[in-house]
Amino acid sequence: MSSIAALKQLYADIDALQGAEALMAWDQQVFMPPGSAGARAAHLGCLLRMSHELFTSDKMQRLIEEAAKEAEPGTEDAATVRVLKRALDQRTKIPATLVEEKGRLGTLGHEIWAKARQDNDFGHFAPILGQLIELTKQEGECLGYTDHIYDALTDQYEEGATKKSWDHMFDGIRKPIVELVAAIKEAGPVDDSALYGDWPEADQRAFCDHIARAVGFDFNIGRQDTAVHPFCGGPSTTDVRLTTRFKNYLPSAIMGTLHEAGHGMYEQGTPVEWAGSPLAGGVSLGWHESQSRTWENIVGRSHAFWTFMLPKLHEAFPATKAFDADSFVKLLNKVEPSFIRVEADEVTYSLHIMVRFEIECALMDGSLAVKDLPEFWNEKYRSYLGIVPETDSVGCLQDVHWSAGAFGYFPTYAMGSILSYQVFDCLRADLGDVDAMMAKGEFAPILHWLQEKVYRQGKRYTPADLVQRVTGKAFGPEAYIAGISAKYKALYGI
Amino acid sequence: MSSIAALKQLYADIDALQGAEALMAWDQQVFMPPGSAGARAAHLGCLLRMSHELFTSDKMQRLIEEAAKEAEPGTEDAATVRVLKRALDQRTKIPATLVEEKGRLGTLGHEIWAKARQDNDFGHFAPILGQLIELTKQEGECLGYTDHIYDALTDQYEEGATKKSWDHMFDGIRKPIVELVAAIKEAGPVDDSALYGDWPEADQRAFCDHIARAVGFDFNIGRQDTAVHPFCGGPSTTDVRLTTRFKNYLPSAIMGTLHEAGHGMYEQGTPVEWAGSPLAGGVSLGWHESQSRTWENIVGRSHAFWTFMLPKLHEAFPATKAFDADSFVKLLNKVEPSFIRVEADEVTYSLHIMVRFEIECALMDGSLAVKDLPEFWNEKYRSYLGIVPETDSVGCLQDVHWSAGAFGYFPTYAMGSILSYQVFDCLRADLGDVDAMMAKGEFAPILHWLQEKVYRQGKRYTPADLVQRVTGKAFGPEAYIAGISAKYKALYGI
Repeated sequence: MSSIAALKQLYADIDALQGAEALMAWDQQVFMPPGSAGARAAHLGCLLRMSHELFTSDKMQRLIEEAAKEAEPGTEDAATVRVLKRALDQRTKIPATLVEEKGRLGTLGHEIWAKARQDNDFGHFAPILGQLIELTKQEGECLGYTDHIYDALTDQYEEGATKKSWDHMFDGIRKPIVELVAAIKEAGPVDDSALYGDWPEADQRAFCDHIARAVGFDFNIGRQDTAVHPFCGGPSTTDVRLTTRFKNYLPSAIMGTLHEAGHGMYEQGTPVEWAGSPLAGGVSLGWHESQSRTWENIVGRSHAFWTFMLPKLHEAFPATKAFDADSFVKLLNKVEPSFIRVEADEVTYSLHIMVRFEIECALMDGSLAVKDLPEFWNEKYRSYLGIVPETDSVGCLQDVHWSAGAFGYFPTYAMGSILSYQVFDCLRADLGDVDAMMAKGEFAPILHWLQEKVYRQGKRYTPADLVQRVTGKAFGPEAYIAGISAKYKALYGI
Repeated sequence: MSSIAALKQLYADIDALQGAEALMAWDQQVFMPPGSAGARAAHLGCLLRMSHELFTSDKMQRLIEEAAKEAEPGTEDAATVRVLKRALDQRTKIPATLVEEKGRLGTLGHEIWAKARQDNDFGHFAPILGQLIELTKQEGECLGYTDHIYDALTDQYEEGATKKSWDHMFDGIRKPIVELVAAIKEAGPVDDSALYGDWPEADQRAFCDHIARAVGFDFNIGRQDTAVHPFCGGPSTTDVRLTTRFKNYLPSAIMGTLHEAGHGMYEQGTPVEWAGSPLAGGVSLGWHESQSRTWENIVGRSHAFWTFMLPKLHEAFPATKAFDADSFVKLLNKVEPSFIRVEADEVTYSLHIMVRFEIECALMDGSLAVKDLPEFWNEKYRSYLGIVPETDSVGCLQDVHWSAGAFGYFPTYAMGSILSYQVFDCLRADLGDVDAMMAKGEFAPILHWLQEKVYRQGKRYTPADLVQRVTGKAFGPEAYIAGISAKYKALYGI
């Protein structure tokens, strides 16, 4: 057997363990009885250790080395080796003791953070945040970097990304977005209170299933359930599981469903012959987020989409009959600076991310001390969003990420928003009048284009190479700035 | 670390893999999207191989040997070693090639059997049944036996059972049950058509959850869902998952729920300190079935139970208000010889099993040829039940077991029925007027007695030892015969 074949065979066991882990993690959020948390944690801990041991085994390391010599450059096999080599590096460069210590501190940090956020007491969180930053710096040193320690950290989440590349990205959007937000503010407030109400959960659930099916999420190889924190998971690319939740703000579950369905359709788009292989699934967090944002924002918040979907909404929720597509889409795209990232609109969202990115870099290179974080945060919100949080709970304590020592993750959210426009522009150029299609409920051509260009590529190319292949140029914010400027200037009559 | 401690630590990994396997198997029957069968089969296959390899590893074998020397006889540690040694023997005595060949033939056999049953074509099934019998005989030779090859086979399902012990069991019930059935037939037919109807599924579901909760199934460490073939599964004794299905025969789901809840409460009764250990869960198939039968038949088909539960049934299904406890319990306990085992009543059920047992023994010792099976089957039905199946589809083709080469399993069903009465008689002797308790909805004393005497013992003792400890004597049919004779003579006024 060739080394490549042996490598793929060994990987099948890792894939089985990871599939089981994913099913257990999904089940834990969706159906697990509350009293079995202990047994689940024990089982999951064992499986995670087993898959890690298998991944870092001598056999795996040897096979990767041998296969690297064997695989012809540019082939699928070479891509397989590249993907596995990168994952192996990430698992082996950081000593087990450091991984363990960070796991321990992260669990503790999560508890302390939750209490600090509840009590609005940053002082309670500050000491352990300091320790987590120190450990994360050690991690960065183990991983290695040329320019800035942030490069080592953020590369874990987005292959090839650096502080410099993120700087470049944010430099391209900072001024136009801040100016757009200011102009929208001047155009006057939008009253979307009609979207809040006592919307029956069963009706929301049925409508969300309908909408996921309509855009092309395949329920033959997927399902949708309810969870407190919505996510897209599941054990394989032929078993993709969305979750949503139901709130009194009607678009919450609908937009959440389109977002998770975007992630889900990306996973489901893996070629059959790659299922269970190292090339299956989305290539990076930024790319993944670009697809959830595409279906949520570019498709799901468009006038064309609601031209088709509004009659169905009227049927499901008769109180919405007061809206036509114009008025509904205006409310759905309400822009208003606010404190909480996860509730932010499409325009202000990237500003929330920018604040976090600048803080992370400053914390990592030591130019910002932990004790000064709240003030720094508030100053950034004043400067970019024109508002200042009244408490740290709705300020620098709002996100879970840092409590687990995850630094370098946030920029991938902004990358997703920005990349979604860059890719969709190319789709429009290829397909012609996409709005006319959506207005007739024809989402298949859009999905097929994305499948062909993106989803079927799996992890075959690096994230940057894939941008080049799909869009013909390097990743950049031009399409995003042009796209949202045009959209919101029209909506707000600016 | 002692060998025992090392053994338990190694077993934790096996338990984690088996827990994942159980969750995957449950999910497959309940929630898995249809298009992911392939990926699930691949994942499950890998995990089953991994847990098998771990169980039969040199390390495991060495630790069991060492721990056997270390453990004081009669202690929990000795029981742990005994349980693992038995499982290891079962996994190692049969060569991997034979296991693989039987797995292959079993999968094929299942397909062929399903088609043969559908087409009422025994001739289509006969050749592969012959092959499966040959392979099963080889299996029996590998496992070893003193008296009869059936001993080797049936011991896999019920530790310590032999052809002789099952002969003894059936000899004790054959005549009295056949006579009881004849007497009931003479007493005249019961018309239970009022139990059939268009019972709304949502109401059935709610009532089944209510009834499971009422008898003591703990939803904090368990749940109930819907599946085509009801079963009790789940990844741990703190995560026990029942399934049921809804039919137009109202008692179907209700009795099914009580049956599976009986299995489930046995699992849930495992002591916390044994969770995930080799001693967790029920000790044998026969013992397990005794508990499902207890809650289904002895509790759930009793006059006392429905004295309490009937008002709830009236509330859930107003059409049942025509019944009082007397009339409802009479219909619920309708006895009538019929062809299909899984639909049989409590009295005729063991006769169905007896037919199968006698056929299995004859097939294994060669006194019955495969080609003569249908005639032999029909003759047995005529002799024991007084009816002759008109087709093999409702005759010797009805059960799935033989199509997978499972010979020696059936008698454990009859053992369950018989043992349930033997144990419940002791419970009555200890607790006094159990009927008065049930009539008030007080099921806790019953459950606590069973937990203390049986469920909390896990796999600590052999099945036979547990019978002796719980009932003070060896397993025997006396209580069963006395119990169902008294019950049905009263119901039918014989």
